[in-house]
Amino acid sequence: MGEFVPKGTRWFDLPSPFLMKRGGCLNAAQLAYESWGSLNLARDNAVLIVTGLSPSAHAASHEANPEPGWWEAMLGPGKAIDTDRWFVICVNSLGSCRGSAGPASINPETGALYGLSFPELSIEDGARAAHALVRGLGIVQLDTLIGCSMGGMTALAYLLQFPGTARRHINICGAAHALPFSIAVRSLQREAIRLDPLWNEGEYTDERYPESGMRIARKLGVLTYRSALEWHGRFGRVRMDNELREDEPFGLEFQVESYLEGHAKRFVRAFDPNCYLYLSRSMDWFDTAEYGEGSVERGLSRIHGTQSLVIGISTDILFPVEQQEQIAEGLALGNNKVAFLAFPSPQGHDAFLVDFDRFDPAVRRFLAGEGLPASDPLD
Amino acid sequence: MGEFVPKGTRWFDLPSPFLMKRGGCLNAAQLAYESWGSLNLARDNAVLIVTGLSPSAHAASHEANPEPGWWEAMLGPGKAIDTDRWFVICVNSLGSCRGSAGPASINPETGALYGLSFPELSIEDGARAAHALVRGLGIVQLDTLIGCSMGGMTALAYLLQFPGTARRHINICGAAHALPFSIAVRSLQREAIRLDPLWNEGEYTDERYPESGMRIARKLGVLTYRSALEWHGRFGRVRMDNELREDEPFGLEFQVESYLEGHAKRFVRAFDPNCYLYLSRSMDWFDTAEYGEGSVERGLSRIHGTQSLVIGISTDILFPVEQQEQIAEGLALGNNKVAFLAFPSPQGHDAFLVDFDRFDPAVRRFLAGEGLPASDPLD
Repeated sequence: MGEFVPKGTRWFDLPSPFLMKRGGCLNAAQLAYESWGSLNLARDNAVLIVTGLSPSAHAASHEANPEPGWWEAMLGPGKAIDTDRWFVICVNSLGSCRGSAGPASINPETGALYGLSFPELSIEDGARAAHALVRGLGIVQLDTLIGCSMGGMTALAYLLQFPGTARRHINICGAAHALPFSIAVRSLQREAIRLDPLWNEGEYTDERYPESGMRIARKLGVLTYRSALEWHGRFGRVRMDNELREDEPFGLEFQVESYLEGHAKRFVRAFDPNCYLYLSRSMDWFDTAEYGEGSVERGLSRIHGTQSLVIGISTDILFPVEQQEQIAEGLALGNNKVAFLAFPSPQGHDAFLVDFDRFDPAVRRFLAGEGLPASDPLD
Repeated sequence: MGEFVPKGTRWFDLPSPFLMKRGGCLNAAQLAYESWGSLNLARDNAVLIVTGLSPSAHAASHEANPEPGWWEAMLGPGKAIDTDRWFVICVNSLGSCRGSAGPASINPETGALYGLSFPELSIEDGARAAHALVRGLGIVQLDTLIGCSMGGMTALAYLLQFPGTARRHINICGAAHALPFSIAVRSLQREAIRLDPLWNEGEYTDERYPESGMRIARKLGVLTYRSALEWHGRFGRVRMDNELREDEPFGLEFQVESYLEGHAKRFVRAFDPNCYLYLSRSMDWFDTAEYGEGSVERGLSRIHGTQSLVIGISTDILFPVEQQEQIAEGLALGNNKVAFLAFPSPQGHDAFLVDFDRFDPAVRRFLAGEGLPASDPLD
């Protein structure tokens, strides 16, 4: 497991036993996190970031780990999330393999890997673990809670379970519940892993590892993280160089295939398959309608006292922009002040990781309390 | 192979040797087809249908096979494609396993299955084989050539290779070349099959068959044949009945997963994996820009003397509607009379197989020479 964890990670001991929403509990479980900047005396300048499925807590470089983080462009001194002003915490999701307790961590009670004996994981569990960390750091109320992708779900679960614990909230490419297309994509990713004989009901080793299943799962992920529009402009029908082509039947030939291959190669050994299955399924299960007698909007309206910025991407097929609009509408129903931005970024769901021309000014102005940019700052 | 071929199929002997575009040739190869109605004395009432990747030539029932065909609602006496008036031929694509020569057929020269020794297959080969059949039936000029999905590519290849051989042309959910998103989807489908150890470089048997690979390939196909919008309305977040749920880790739980499972179960043993690979790749390779010095539109403008109806679906993510618009624009450049219809059907790429309220009147009026319905007949 050590190979998955960034240098300079810190650990927080979760209260024990930590009860899980769907049953079971964790004992002596830890949560990995990193932080930037300093908590002020009033303890009111904290920003918590909850992540998508695969990122670690290493959102940006710091002294203990100068490697660039997954949101390096957004986070640091003078950046949109200004660490000279804010005390920023990024937590590795409960269930992930990047340092937090999960299927790839050791069960302290048995001394063996959890594997599939890890209890069923829900988005709410991840939110409760993150909240325990925040309280453990001595923070009663966050200034801002930021969630991207799966983290958008986690942020909503946080606000629903702990009313009033975040003065503000930025929800990026999130969803109030999973819709059937996304469920189908994730189900197929999980099936590719499960069908790999080397998955072996979760009992794999480094030597006998479900590499084929992870490869398919990741490529299918990348297919849904980007957009046809972006790829059209970026790859067209350009072929790979001859010397890079595979000399086997039906081998890769087009540059877009080579791009997917590069993503798969970097990922298959860098993320634990069982953790992938647990986190993926937790997204399918998440449904704010549980908090609103069957209505997503009513569920969201239970959130009070949080000023929100909700951002979606018009080319996102995995968390389509209608879902962020729904979040904004639901929050508004609860008398929360809400701004909703729909960016026309060509990069699909992943735009928040690349389209900083749009994301930087929107997040910067919201955090600075200077209002919001126009719906498309690049128009 | 027999199990894949519908009852009542007829066979046509292709000229021998049949040269393939990318090299190699077929000897004593056959093409499977079915027909409805009668050829008139002037031999000018013939309609040819070229199909998508998986359908057989059994587009509709007839005396020799009363089973409903894949376009039963559109084809028959008094229907949109009226077999009282037209002599309709549907051809099983060259390379398919539904009766035509392909990787799953016997090589007459060796007495063994072709398997991967079948020569590389291009869309143009399929079009030339279909044209040979039409000539073999004594028809010099078709009244109408109809192509759906992959068949839309085949129809364009037919018109480019045999100018003036179709007075009219209906292109449904087709494309003038494959774009990177579709290439990526198909590449991933092929990779799922190739990664299945039981594919065994194309040397599988009924007992040792790449069922897992075909299952993933088919489910990924169905994901791209339909639309998120349709599934949202159809499945929502409804769960499967408890007794239908799989009692295994990460087993299926939502109805949309059960729907995909049903599609996979019906398909994996009903289509030959090697044929799937050959036909899938032929779509990636197809590019009308080869006929226009690198320009798709100029390539299409080489088609002359054909009146065309081009139909696309606004929710199609595999052959997006911009691609049908491009076909219409390219054909218009060649001074062909062209009508373009973009239907807002929620069913995505597969709409032509289900949304007959829109497809019936459009095809009916075009074939009857009565002009065209408004862009959306249901508006």
